[in-house]
Amino acid sequence: MSRITALETADVRFPTSLQLDGSDAMNPDPDYSAAYVRIVTDAGDSGHGFVFTIGRGNDVQVAAIEALSGHLVGKDVEPLLGGMGDTWRELVHDSQLRWLGPEKGVMHMAIGAVVNALWDLRAKREGRPLWQVLAAMTPEQLVDLVDFRYLTDALTPEEALQILRAAEPGRAERQERLLREGYPAYTTTPGWLGYDDEKLARLCREAVDEGFDQIKLKVGGDLADDVRRLRIAREAVGPDIRIAVDANQRWDVSDAIAWIKELASFDLAWVEEPTSPDDVLGHAAIARGIAPIPVATGEHMANRVMAKQFLAHDALQVLQIDATRVAGVNENVAMLLLAAKFGVPVCPHAGGVGLCEAVQHLAMFDYVAVSGRLDGRMIEFVDHLHEHFVTPVQVTGGRYRTPTEPGAGTEMHAASLAGYTVVRDA
Amino acid sequence: MSRITALETADVRFPTSLQLDGSDAMNPDPDYSAAYVRIVTDAGDSGHGFVFTIGRGNDVQVAAIEALSGHLVGKDVEPLLGGMGDTWRELVHDSQLRWLGPEKGVMHMAIGAVVNALWDLRAKREGRPLWQVLAAMTPEQLVDLVDFRYLTDALTPEEALQILRAAEPGRAERQERLLREGYPAYTTTPGWLGYDDEKLARLCREAVDEGFDQIKLKVGGDLADDVRRLRIAREAVGPDIRIAVDANQRWDVSDAIAWIKELASFDLAWVEEPTSPDDVLGHAAIARGIAPIPVATGEHMANRVMAKQFLAHDALQVLQIDATRVAGVNENVAMLLLAAKFGVPVCPHAGGVGLCEAVQHLAMFDYVAVSGRLDGRMIEFVDHLHEHFVTPVQVTGGRYRTPTEPGAGTEMHAASLAGYTVVRDA
Repeated sequence: MSRITALETADVRFPTSLQLDGSDAMNPDPDYSAAYVRIVTDAGDSGHGFVFTIGRGNDVQVAAIEALSGHLVGKDVEPLLGGMGDTWRELVHDSQLRWLGPEKGVMHMAIGAVVNALWDLRAKREGRPLWQVLAAMTPEQLVDLVDFRYLTDALTPEEALQILRAAEPGRAERQERLLREGYPAYTTTPGWLGYDDEKLARLCREAVDEGFDQIKLKVGGDLADDVRRLRIAREAVGPDIRIAVDANQRWDVSDAIAWIKELASFDLAWVEEPTSPDDVLGHAAIARGIAPIPVATGEHMANRVMAKQFLAHDALQVLQIDATRVAGVNENVAMLLLAAKFGVPVCPHAGGVGLCEAVQHLAMFDYVAVSGRLDGRMIEFVDHLHEHFVTPVQVTGGRYRTPTEPGAGTEMHAASLAGYTVVRDA
Repeated sequence: MSRITALETADVRFPTSLQLDGSDAMNPDPDYSAAYVRIVTDAGDSGHGFVFTIGRGNDVQVAAIEALSGHLVGKDVEPLLGGMGDTWRELVHDSQLRWLGPEKGVMHMAIGAVVNALWDLRAKREGRPLWQVLAAMTPEQLVDLVDFRYLTDALTPEEALQILRAAEPGRAERQERLLREGYPAYTTTPGWLGYDDEKLARLCREAVDEGFDQIKLKVGGDLADDVRRLRIAREAVGPDIRIAVDANQRWDVSDAIAWIKELASFDLAWVEEPTSPDDVLGHAAIARGIAPIPVATGEHMANRVMAKQFLAHDALQVLQIDATRVAGVNENVAMLLLAAKFGVPVCPHAGGVGLCEAVQHLAMFDYVAVSGRLDGRMIEFVDHLHEHFVTPVQVTGGRYRTPTEPGAGTEMHAASLAGYTVVRDA
């Protein structure tokens, strides 16, 4: 039996705004940051997790993580890790903390960081990467991870079991294929709004040379700019590479439909975050208005209740789960099951700080044990800040190479933590 | 010209869990708390605001308020107060802080506290209660307070102007009536789940004796208990007093419909928060399933985008705005306009710490200058913790007496702040 002795946090900030990496129509100058947590045990091991933010407020996110220490410090590790469904429910349904959401925003993301840190610890103890830990669980064990409260009108535990059982036969074969071939990726590196045309064209060509089948461009600042940049990108990549666009919540419903019609001739793979991430019915109207171009969203989707509505009402055609927006691995398992139920492909949001490292495990688990499919699926890739992680992603030939190191991918180097942690006045 | 010199915060907690005041199906043991903010100027005046929470996490909420000080401290007061629309937009659209929601949860509520404190300061400077400050503004000035981003598919600025202009003729007359007669109230005091049957019956009789036309009972813990308690309440109040029930998000969609059918014979005024506050389409399904019993919700509604969807898709029949859940007065003005557009009555959520004091101004403003109506409208009333406020509500004969003191009602006594502020280790 071992115990949790400490929940240590760090306010980690990278000065990315200096290069305009990550600039888009709503986020002109992000400083990519992580509200980082390390759960330490008296057995000498630890689990690591974080919430990705873009700068100011990272300290608030750290404070929210610290507010959870009473649920963890002093507790026995084995029951927490062995019953991750119950652990999740205890954290999310703390009746007082719940008031701060409920199940959304700063407090919910803080729970996500802690839940992910516990999964990191569990995977390290099992000596396997997280995707493999999940893919080795029985359908019953996986269903127990999910809180079906508020979901049963769209997905019951029995339906979830059926989905998982249907995917059981091919697990071993898909795992082999995953280890051999990796998982498809697309790149957002060329498309930030802050880059000039020459850099855009160069990065587009490099993306193709590196083997990517899809790139993504930020849009929504200025229509003429978008048309010019899409023309440059399309000329640079040729007709066979998919180009998605991302408006980062820039538009109202009718603006989105009108704007996208002006860009449709560039053969768009999807339109991402056309409007408020809370607007289920607005997205549904946009999807109808721009069909057959798919609507993609999810990186700011607050929780599984929103996912349920988007999926059950045709408000999106591509679900972009995020590793640190919801309450961690468990809630993302719920979202994967919902997506499988409604036959919608999951193309995770990544980039930021460590999002690639974290979310690849969920996509790979989905392939092995949930949807069992790769068609129309790919993980976003942005090539920055990976060097700060102990097990950085390996993306070659346009594919994520399947990680085999133990853990959830969420541990940062001690030197990076030391070098980029902001110390604040008390 | 005066300047803001400080943004002072306090983590105020009342040990209400000791009496089970406020106990319901989801919140068994709340400690009513306030993340309090005082905006101080070099002119010697100050504005006060707060976020209501139920205990743990109040410190996180305080940290979020402090994260906003850079937007305020050192700034000239007059342009901030004179251009509250722009002030709101600057706070809500801070591109880095926005990531922590967007527009929901801890960070959004923190903005609400600050916005409300600025309105308190403005009302004090004008020497009028907040409701009167708002009711004296022109339709154009009121429309400028509202951020129509994400709303225009349901409500355009032009439509909002029309609503406000249509209500202009009767403003003076309604203001007189309000000052003379007050605003209707209903009481939740009898109905907490933690009270025994005898206390329930006694408090029900007292509510009728005090002049209330409607009471509200918490339900959703146990069906047999709910039936027994509703029978006791109905017998105590007689057939002419309305009884609403509040499930505090306890049910899934089909559970809600089935449970409410078992209670329908008690002639329910409305069913409040039957399920997740994020589930627009779930509420719509419940509303169809239990019609003609109205569905009421709003106290946990994250923002105006959610309000838009609930209203435009018949997902609620009573909108319960909350003074400290959204980004303050401005966003609640948006919600009042949306409700007026869709012809839905607003019955504000109150209770907690200071929610009655704060929200009465919005309901009264709505009567004078927006909907112009009192039918089916009433403000929740719970009789506790009012003594901590400088201008406590006066509820007599089942009505809120219209406040005439300057300010937004949000200032606590210095002695209460001193007595109930929690000091934490650094």
